[in-house]
Amino acid sequence: MLVVLTGIPGSGKTTLAKRALEILKEEEGKSQYEILNYGDIAFEIAKERDNVQNRDEIRKLKLSEQKEIQRLAAKRIANASKDKSVIIDTHCTISTPKGYIPGLPEWVLRELQPDLMIIIEASPEEIVKRRKKDETRERDDEIKSEIKLHQELNRFIAMSYSTLTGAAVKIIKNPEDKIDETARKLAEILKLN
Amino acid sequence: MLVVLTGIPGSGKTTLAKRALEILKEEEGKSQYEILNYGDIAFEIAKERDNVQNRDEIRKLKLSEQKEIQRLAAKRIANASKDKSVIIDTHCTISTPKGYIPGLPEWVLRELQPDLMIIIEASPEEIVKRRKKDETRERDDEIKSEIKLHQELNRFIAMSYSTLTGAAVKIIKNPEDKIDETARKLAEILKLN
Amino acid sequence: MLVVLTGIPGSGKTTLAKRALEILKEEEGKSQYEILNYGDIAFEIAKERDNVQNRDEIRKLKLSEQKEIQRLAAKRIANASKDKSVIIDTHCTISTPKGYIPGLPEWVLRELQPDLMIIIEASPEEIVKRRKKDETRERDDEIKSEIKLHQELNRFIAMSYSTLTGAAVKIIKNPEDKIDETARKLAEILKLN
Repeated sequence: MLVVLTGIPGSGKTTLAKRALEILKEEEGKSQYEILNYGDIAFEIAKERDNVQNRDEIRKLKLSEQKEIQRLAAKRIANASKDKSVIIDTHCTISTPKGYIPGLPEWVLRELQPDLMIIIEASPEEIVKRRKKDETRERDDEIKSEIKLHQELNRFIAMSYSTLTGAAVKIIKNPEDKIDETARKLAEILKLN
Repeated sequence: MLVVLTGIPGSGKTTLAKRALEILKEEEGKSQYEILNYGDIAFEIAKERDNVQNRDEIRKLKLSEQKEIQRLAAKRIANASKDKSVIIDTHCTISTPKGYIPGLPEWVLRELQPDLMIIIEASPEEIVKRRKKDETRERDDEIKSEIKLHQELNRFIAMSYSTLTGAAVKIIKNPEDKIDETARKLAEILKLN
Repeated sequence: MLVVLTGIPGSGKTTLAKRALEILKEEEGKSQYEILNYGDIAFEIAKERDNVQNRDEIRKLKLSEQKEIQRLAAKRIANASKDKSVIIDTHCTISTPKGYIPGLPEWVLRELQPDLMIIIEASPEEIVKRRKKDETRERDDEIKSEIKLHQELNRFIAMSYSTLTGAAVKIIKNPEDKIDETARKLAEILKLN
């Protein structure tokens, strides 16, 4: 079973996923899910194929090679998900200076074939607060409106991912003061798979 | 000619379509359109292929078999639309416990090749009221916000359906107090085909 | 390098693009970009293939022939962009009586393979004002709400275009009183390519 877990930086998705798996472990003795990070797997593949030393070097490769790395990372994950349930920690879109690029373009989706895509969202206010802990500094109003846009674009593109794969799309709001309740909700959905 | 007619439960799409066809009949002596229900055709195919007795059994079939049934239903409809004008009554997305799943995933669209997709929308308030007549009971505010989300996701995914098929997308608001006017608007659009 | 520049009529995209290229010319001696109009190229192809005399005749051709013209126009543009940087002036969706149709359906995108899609947006108020200079007359409130919808649908469909091509999507707001500033922003993004 293959679950794609997405959410913009500061949405709290990684913390939430860990808690949800703890809840499943408490209930069932062990969690059936393993969390994999799409970027980590892509970096592994890039090291094997192109002998890159760090993630920034991937972006310096030819575009066709970058796409091939993305495709092979998706294939590796799809293979891993045959024996066990896998949660992929990744992004619907990635904000770059040129604009928003798809985290799961067609050539990735064709290999990945996810069963379920979960979008973790939070309010722009809470996301700004969480990012500030990470020492990010920018003009608050502008960044809040960019966060709002980014979360909207992620919803839009998720529906196009769903058209190509048939994957279910679940949007989960993650307010700061209800993390346990939200993790429990996420755990319930993961049990449906 | 193949028109896909969508709208969430309670949007009033089926009533509206019937009235629009009555209007066309009054004007032109006979209506050129036949309304088919996608779910009915899929059930027909499932009965033929897998000897299922009711719709719930379809969901118990292997996923690959479910997809094949969906594809063959689309193919049957596309064939029917060669000789006459067909309106398919179906859904952009279907709300399930796991999340929203696409009503017209790629493998369906490739067979269906619709010319026009119509989305009937209504206000969450009116949809809740219509559903209550059907004895649905849930907390109103929560269900209204889910209705709003569902209608939004349907708009998003319709544009992805349009990208793959070239189909025109028409959104029609269906307020309770203007059904005749709205049916007339729908009839006008159906005449364009 | 291939940049798709979109924006609904009255968004000011063409004026903005010209100013951005002037800025690049001032800075770099010459602009590396050429602006091509997708509709013009499609018309060229239709003249060659079908001997049509004006654009309206294209819509009277068989649908399969229209699609072929669109595909070949995209191919010609993609070829032109191998030697130089090209900006395509076109539309995400086109408003027709039947509904919104995709400006870049799949068969166009597969040939075009854009690197970047830019959406120029303006407020419905400013768009109405700009269109009035072009002698357009319609009921203002209704047209404003249609403009809002059209710009929303363009955002939705752009994400589906991005899924199929991997193109970055950049949304640029173009307020009337800041055209120079906005043109400068656009020029900066064009330099990233």
